[in-house]
Amino acid sequence: MIVVMKVDATIAQIDHMAQRITALGLTPQVIHGKHQTVIAALGQERAGLTEVLEPGEGVEKVLPIMAPYKRASSELTRERTVVKARGLEVGGARVTVIAGPCSVESEEQIVVLARELKDLGATGLRGGAFKPRTSPYSFQGHKELGLKMLANARAETGLAIVTEVMAPEHVPMVAEYADVLQIGARNMQNYQLLQAVGDSGKPALLKRGMSATQEEFLLAAEYILDRGNPNVMLCERGIRTYEDHTRFTLPLATVPYLHDKSHLPVVVDPSHGTGKSKLVIPMSRAAVAAGADALILEVHDDPEHAVSDGAQSITPAAFGQLMDQCRRIAAAVDRTL
Amino acid sequence: MIVVMKVDATIAQIDHMAQRITALGLTPQVIHGKHQTVIAALGQERAGLTEVLEPGEGVEKVLPIMAPYKRASSELTRERTVVKARGLEVGGARVTVIAGPCSVESEEQIVVLARELKDLGATGLRGGAFKPRTSPYSFQGHKELGLKMLANARAETGLAIVTEVMAPEHVPMVAEYADVLQIGARNMQNYQLLQAVGDSGKPALLKRGMSATQEEFLLAAEYILDRGNPNVMLCERGIRTYEDHTRFTLPLATVPYLHDKSHLPVVVDPSHGTGKSKLVIPMSRAAVAAGADALILEVHDDPEHAVSDGAQSITPAAFGQLMDQCRRIAAAVDRTL
Amino acid sequence: MIVVMKVDATIAQIDHMAQRITALGLTPQVIHGKHQTVIAALGQERAGLTEVLEPGEGVEKVLPIMAPYKRASSELTRERTVVKARGLEVGGARVTVIAGPCSVESEEQIVVLARELKDLGATGLRGGAFKPRTSPYSFQGHKELGLKMLANARAETGLAIVTEVMAPEHVPMVAEYADVLQIGARNMQNYQLLQAVGDSGKPALLKRGMSATQEEFLLAAEYILDRGNPNVMLCERGIRTYEDHTRFTLPLATVPYLHDKSHLPVVVDPSHGTGKSKLVIPMSRAAVAAGADALILEVHDDPEHAVSDGAQSITPAAFGQLMDQCRRIAAAVDRTL
Amino acid sequence: MIVVMKVDATIAQIDHMAQRITALGLTPQVIHGKHQTVIAALGQERAGLTEVLEPGEGVEKVLPIMAPYKRASSELTRERTVVKARGLEVGGARVTVIAGPCSVESEEQIVVLARELKDLGATGLRGGAFKPRTSPYSFQGHKELGLKMLANARAETGLAIVTEVMAPEHVPMVAEYADVLQIGARNMQNYQLLQAVGDSGKPALLKRGMSATQEEFLLAAEYILDRGNPNVMLCERGIRTYEDHTRFTLPLATVPYLHDKSHLPVVVDPSHGTGKSKLVIPMSRAAVAAGADALILEVHDDPEHAVSDGAQSITPAAFGQLMDQCRRIAAAVDRTL
Repeated sequence: MIVVMKVDATIAQIDHMAQRITALGLTPQVIHGKHQTVIAALGQERAGLTEVLEPGEGVEKVLPIMAPYKRASSELTRERTVVKARGLEVGGARVTVIAGPCSVESEEQIVVLARELKDLGATGLRGGAFKPRTSPYSFQGHKELGLKMLANARAETGLAIVTEVMAPEHVPMVAEYADVLQIGARNMQNYQLLQAVGDSGKPALLKRGMSATQEEFLLAAEYILDRGNPNVMLCERGIRTYEDHTRFTLPLATVPYLHDKSHLPVVVDPSHGTGKSKLVIPMSRAAVAAGADALILEVHDDPEHAVSDGAQSITPAAFGQLMDQCRRIAAAVDRTL
Repeated sequence: MIVVMKVDATIAQIDHMAQRITALGLTPQVIHGKHQTVIAALGQERAGLTEVLEPGEGVEKVLPIMAPYKRASSELTRERTVVKARGLEVGGARVTVIAGPCSVESEEQIVVLARELKDLGATGLRGGAFKPRTSPYSFQGHKELGLKMLANARAETGLAIVTEVMAPEHVPMVAEYADVLQIGARNMQNYQLLQAVGDSGKPALLKRGMSATQEEFLLAAEYILDRGNPNVMLCERGIRTYEDHTRFTLPLATVPYLHDKSHLPVVVDPSHGTGKSKLVIPMSRAAVAAGADALILEVHDDPEHAVSDGAQSITPAAFGQLMDQCRRIAAAVDRTL
Repeated sequence: MIVVMKVDATIAQIDHMAQRITALGLTPQVIHGKHQTVIAALGQERAGLTEVLEPGEGVEKVLPIMAPYKRASSELTRERTVVKARGLEVGGARVTVIAGPCSVESEEQIVVLARELKDLGATGLRGGAFKPRTSPYSFQGHKELGLKMLANARAETGLAIVTEVMAPEHVPMVAEYADVLQIGARNMQNYQLLQAVGDSGKPALLKRGMSATQEEFLLAAEYILDRGNPNVMLCERGIRTYEDHTRFTLPLATVPYLHDKSHLPVVVDPSHGTGKSKLVIPMSRAAVAAGADALILEVHDDPEHAVSDGAQSITPAAFGQLMDQCRRIAAAVDRTL
Repeated sequence: MIVVMKVDATIAQIDHMAQRITALGLTPQVIHGKHQTVIAALGQERAGLTEVLEPGEGVEKVLPIMAPYKRASSELTRERTVVKARGLEVGGARVTVIAGPCSVESEEQIVVLARELKDLGATGLRGGAFKPRTSPYSFQGHKELGLKMLANARAETGLAIVTEVMAPEHVPMVAEYADVLQIGARNMQNYQLLQAVGDSGKPALLKRGMSATQEEFLLAAEYILDRGNPNVMLCERGIRTYEDHTRFTLPLATVPYLHDKSHLPVVVDPSHGTGKSKLVIPMSRAAVAAGADALILEVHDDPEHAVSDGAQSITPAAFGQLMDQCRRIAAAVDRTL
């Protein structure tokens, strides 16, 4: 860290901060500039040290130098992680596609749709059994019954099941049926949940919180990795900005940025990222062109009658077109799909 | 709701949407404009209906008319709610102050500090026993031991205890020690937690999520109210914007806005809302001037050695000045403090 | 428009608003809902009417139905606009590329670089002669001298010159040398400038303001179109959000969104949109995959010694790679580059 | 500045950067940490140096230490600036109030209203003669005729005239009639305009751009100050965030922050900052409590028939209440109003 002292900091304050740095196990190096003094704190920078030094008297600000995440960082783990769950492999040469309805509505719906998606090239099946809803009056999902429907769809098709888990106490039950545990954007900083998913050892798909920075996103992954579970996929699903013509703003620079900073695979969700079915195909192409390792998409056989997220769901026919177009983009970046 | 049809929508599409509206239990009224047709859907507008109608063919957009929250709304409950927890009353003529350290660090710390705060005019004591931390490597709180320390501080001072609960399974334990259950910003949409707090019947202090809209904030309160727990305080604690000179942006217009839309009392947190101790006093004054029912503040006897949030903590001496200044502001808006 | 009356609006207030609507040349249609009354205002919705009706007594809110921009809209002009400036054509089957340094630094620099860019496939040359700088102490550009250097580079290569104009009084001078007048993000709502560029009749490249909505962006284009100048290119260059790992957030959903709402061609600027040279190539690929009609890129022969924007400039060698990769993406979306 | 080198930076790269720093007239001090090397660049940090060093090979990031604004900074000018324009004094013990309609509509309107405002305690009269409008189809102001009306209202009342100037070429004309030249939020980075206002020597009221950082805001002021015009008022008028229940988000922490960093007086605009007349009074109280030196408010005798901004305009009666309430708040912070 670099501790920047105020212009009018006293010698006593500078000495005091140097002692504080030493007491924290770091080595202070005082640099007297023309206007201001700064103190470099050398050694192992730990998360939280910045905030410990900031309230010191005479301190203007503290600038961190090192990234606070370790296990998620590409600095220490240079080999790229490939997450495998049944037939689904995310992070390798092949761009993979996870598709399905927002909510699991009925057994017939999910089985029929799963067959179509499989035929069109999906390798994962998404579908909500536990649904986090903004309003208590909205449909909350079929819960365990929904999980069973998903398991039946898997038995019919072999698709890997990706479904959301919303509370630590549900992890064992969801883990029994699912191949990948999804942590939703609203729960990205639900630390008990992250730890429970970490403990389960199951592959995790971690969605970026809608106002999370990249550092917070990687620190949330760190919570899972830190419990000994290395199978984490990072999913960009759009952030909240002032833009009002889309449901969220989907920042695809996340893909190459995370590929540089982390060894974990990166998934993109153009359905939530735009909230509009019309924008899903072009943004799926763009995501693959940016280097995404996988797409996760909402597909519904009848979006008009979907119980949730109909406006951003595409039909199986549109999904077929999407797959064709994305296959060509994948080839143009030397990957398959 | 108002369903706006596209400029080139066909008569069949308009008829179809009118039928969909009827099927949902509402009455459609078709209005043919010069350029576009809109359909008013009359009747009880329910949360989620907008998203059900939006994917319809020929639909441009769906505009909701009514607020989706009911129990939190001042339309149905005209009498203002006053939340009472031991000596703490929030929502009445008196502006109340909840103060204490970010984390409970030791029994001595919390008891000594509680006495000082009480002498200076606080009626509630805040302090974290379970700490949600961005990094898994940061101090996570003393957990149940911390709760016991808080209970001892209450025994010594009579201050009402306000502390955060982070997971549904912790609710019974925290409720045993605390007078008010705080739901943190990161958990504002942790619905299992909201329901568990609702079921506990304990007074709740609900912090606004850092990118939550007012509608989402009130719908989160609705989750608690809907379980039969009417004792909800809404807490503005700052939102995430592009501003980088403060930790968050503290939008005080929240206070009069919520007072207009809801009967629930409004608390302001200038410590998290600014992240800088230097800004806490003027923003506390401003919050009281805007009409806040209570303040929640981080106070530490030695901010430089606080284990967390030292940069935004003020000293007991500064807290004394804050109380003096806010008392004058309270008087200027015909309240006491 | 739809005027939503308050729950407790009186009959007199409703009648009054109906009369106000009639006085504005629209036809009111009053719809009495179960809880609330709404009034549809039928006829030609004009910009500014919403704000005129909103302060009415008993009015809850006013919802606009029609887009306030007319000439920029794809509703009235269905044929796509292709902007032509010398060899540069933007909006046709070919994706075109405009490249060059942030600032024109010297005649030798710009001529040598222009030759390289032309050989690698660029059809437009960008370069700043007038530079809008956040600080008055930063380099402000070579002004007319810079324009002459650009004209010489054009004489040598035939590349079309794209350069920024910052003030209405400079328009004639810049128009004398340049083929395309660029309006920077900071000036997107500098209406005198928009009108002056409109009056010049020169092709315009209009950058999106860093916190402009799509509606504001299209209304800014409307200012130029309204002066009889149809040659407007819309340029997405990134918006300001809470993200701090990139200079701006580049929302590529802008591309298909604008292609749907407007007939004007859409250009993407991945250099400003990310602020980091490392992210420019993948985001250029993504932009082409999303359907961009052109790219505008900062290329410098020696980014380390660039007088401005070095961190986001790529070398000619990287530009060559970018062109190769984007050519493959263009082919995958059935275009050339 | 602190130049942070990458973990794998070579010795050659480190040496090279040290030489670059020396060539820029600064003194490099190389600090070898456990994981990373950082180089402190000692000496006079100038705006733009960060961006010059960032593209260097092996450089991870460059951290500025000093504020890039000089003349606006409280570090060099410790005495607080009081801006005086006729009877209007901003920055002293008295909180002053500038009020008036969004647009000057007619001579009778402005004269009658000015008398009322004066009687109620205003010392400045605002009113738009040149109106920056999002749409080319909205009312653009009475221009010079409007300026004459304002001058007549001043002749009748003695109120100082505050009005917006939108283009450099209008500065002489507006300066002839007005006492204070207002630079609107959309023009905060219209540098030609800032310089022209600087050159005029007239007191300036500079509005914060709707997505400007504090640093950019102070650098915009620097453009005016740098032309030898010391009479600059900084005006917080709300920023663009994801919030949709108000027109903008009004961050009052700006007031104490700017008072700390700068010697210039701070004005708050609760009308634009909220966009809703109902929120104007509480936010005016809050602004005064936060320490604002002046308020600027939209008041209209008949908001329902205002040609612009009716929704956020308050009536003279409401303005009278506002003044009464704010007077009490001013007294509570030891000021007058």
